[in-house]
Amino acid sequence: MIIDQTRLPFALEIVRLESLEAAARAIETMQVRGAPCIGAAAAYGMYLGLREDPSDEGLRRAGARLARTRPTAVNLAWAISELNAAVEGAPPAARARAALTRAEEICAEDIEISRGIGRHGLALIEEIAKRKAGPVNILTHCNAGWLATVDLGTATAPIYMAHDKGLDIHVWVDETRPRNQGASLTAFELGAHGVPHTVIVDNAGGHLMQKGLVDLCIVGTDRTARNGDVANKIGTYLKALAAFDNGVPFYVALPHTTIDWSIRDGVRDIPIEQRGAEEVTSMTGRLSSGEVATVEIVAAGSPVANYAFDVTPARLVTGLITERGVAPASEEGLLSLYPERRGA
Amino acid sequence: MIIDQTRLPFALEIVRLESLEAAARAIETMQVRGAPCIGAAAAYGMYLGLREDPSDEGLRRAGARLARTRPTAVNLAWAISELNAAVEGAPPAARARAALTRAEEICAEDIEISRGIGRHGLALIEEIAKRKAGPVNILTHCNAGWLATVDLGTATAPIYMAHDKGLDIHVWVDETRPRNQGASLTAFELGAHGVPHTVIVDNAGGHLMQKGLVDLCIVGTDRTARNGDVANKIGTYLKALAAFDNGVPFYVALPHTTIDWSIRDGVRDIPIEQRGAEEVTSMTGRLSSGEVATVEIVAAGSPVANYAFDVTPARLVTGLITERGVAPASEEGLLSLYPERRGA
Repeated sequence: MIIDQTRLPFALEIVRLESLEAAARAIETMQVRGAPCIGAAAAYGMYLGLREDPSDEGLRRAGARLARTRPTAVNLAWAISELNAAVEGAPPAARARAALTRAEEICAEDIEISRGIGRHGLALIEEIAKRKAGPVNILTHCNAGWLATVDLGTATAPIYMAHDKGLDIHVWVDETRPRNQGASLTAFELGAHGVPHTVIVDNAGGHLMQKGLVDLCIVGTDRTARNGDVANKIGTYLKALAAFDNGVPFYVALPHTTIDWSIRDGVRDIPIEQRGAEEVTSMTGRLSSGEVATVEIVAAGSPVANYAFDVTPARLVTGLITERGVAPASEEGLLSLYPERRGA
Repeated sequence: MIIDQTRLPFALEIVRLESLEAAARAIETMQVRGAPCIGAAAAYGMYLGLREDPSDEGLRRAGARLARTRPTAVNLAWAISELNAAVEGAPPAARARAALTRAEEICAEDIEISRGIGRHGLALIEEIAKRKAGPVNILTHCNAGWLATVDLGTATAPIYMAHDKGLDIHVWVDETRPRNQGASLTAFELGAHGVPHTVIVDNAGGHLMQKGLVDLCIVGTDRTARNGDVANKIGTYLKALAAFDNGVPFYVALPHTTIDWSIRDGVRDIPIEQRGAEEVTSMTGRLSSGEVATVEIVAAGSPVANYAFDVTPARLVTGLITERGVAPASEEGLLSLYPERRGA
């Protein structure tokens, strides 16, 4: 069961995914989105595929179908490989059950990971709170909240923990065109949790940082390269540039599952998904009648390009917050947290 | 008579401004927008005010009413001061006619200025075209086109001239949230003129520059400080940072009327207008029925901030293109083009 994120914030709709194809489509159409949430959905998709066809061919087909849904989020490939490992060697009749067990474990692990990120990120916010009067202003881009994970979020985990602890915080929420995950999902989440926040257009962050109105940035990532470069929602790179130019700390929160140890140069080698023009040309919202409607907003006949992600070079990232701690955005930094990867 | 720019690209509506108040409201509500166009509208507004009341008090009242419509564009103050000078010393009965004459001159001058900017900017595009195969890719933000001036535009003047001369060019058009002047006005203008272009969200420019898909940026400005800092539509600063980070030339096109010689530090001292939340929370477009409608796009109850401009520091600007030529973005650069300001 998933929350259909394409309907938020206008409707909270729970959808039951009953087949491999339904799970794959939910990922493609972004009913399910956010790197960790995509991983969890892919794990359940593998289970559903094996329930339909537990043969070797069925296993291969399920992995192949899910793998081609989204090119940038590495959690997808990670979850598929985890599920393959979980059913490896099991006879076909036992595969669906083994897959379900591993999918459930992945979800439980994801919650633990969010808590770990939250604790380490909270320490960074507390440190800033000690040094300044008034609220700690945090800027975030896109949605790396509980809607993007199984619970609590990645970039938002420290925010929720800080708020729950009674710290005075305020969040600048980037609208995040073209799909408006900030204005619709992050604002919805923070509002529901009672966290003070303000929605701004994606263009505004540079001005806010120039005027001293941002104390730190925390964003999520869809794929982290071995060298610390991070792919995240399109526009993240521009905010990192502004943070660097104004001396504002820029942190990226991530579970170990988004690290792609095989990519040594993220800017050069992380594949960037291009999506349909209609995400840019049209906008869905609520009419004054309360009805949800879609309007065309681009001059008729004008061509459109829609790159879904960009890559922020490690040199602009102050630190990576993972479930194991905070490290510099570099191969050495990542290896200090995951020493088992040394030599791999 | 003005084109109501709040109705584009869905309807081309010509509005006749018959009173001082109508002119002031047209500027406030952005039916008229773009620094040079605001200047022209303010000049005619002064004429309309003097037609209603040519007394000293009427003159003062017209200037005060128009001055408080928009805080950032300096052309407004410039046009008011030009009109004051034009009627100074004239008896009340002769003032309206003198004002009309000066307003007409300002419009004629504006066309000449656009042509000058176009010629100097064209040379920059031609130079890049000589060095590369394929189209020259130009990125622009907001609308500094013929809709923003009396004709031809500032940032777009070199683009139109290059296209008319048969150069192979392609324009990346930033959507320009929150008011979408790029997606609606610039795309409409370029499409009508047959200039190849592609609309992108404001978040995309950094990625394009990182991937070598932008050869130069040209934007307009609403106020240029004596030190070369430029205030322009919110988000311009982020594009300038990305251009600088990727070695892409970043030019600002401006008529001398946007230079504020009294401001020595633009980042610190140019006032930044904050506008209504509804520009961010709602979006106007065309329903599939063809009807124009407005939808709410932000999660209900979430607060919003709406800064209309930001200031790009001179250090990120490759050069200023004015009607007199191209100069470095610095006091010395500006004075080399306007030596009559030396010592002022």
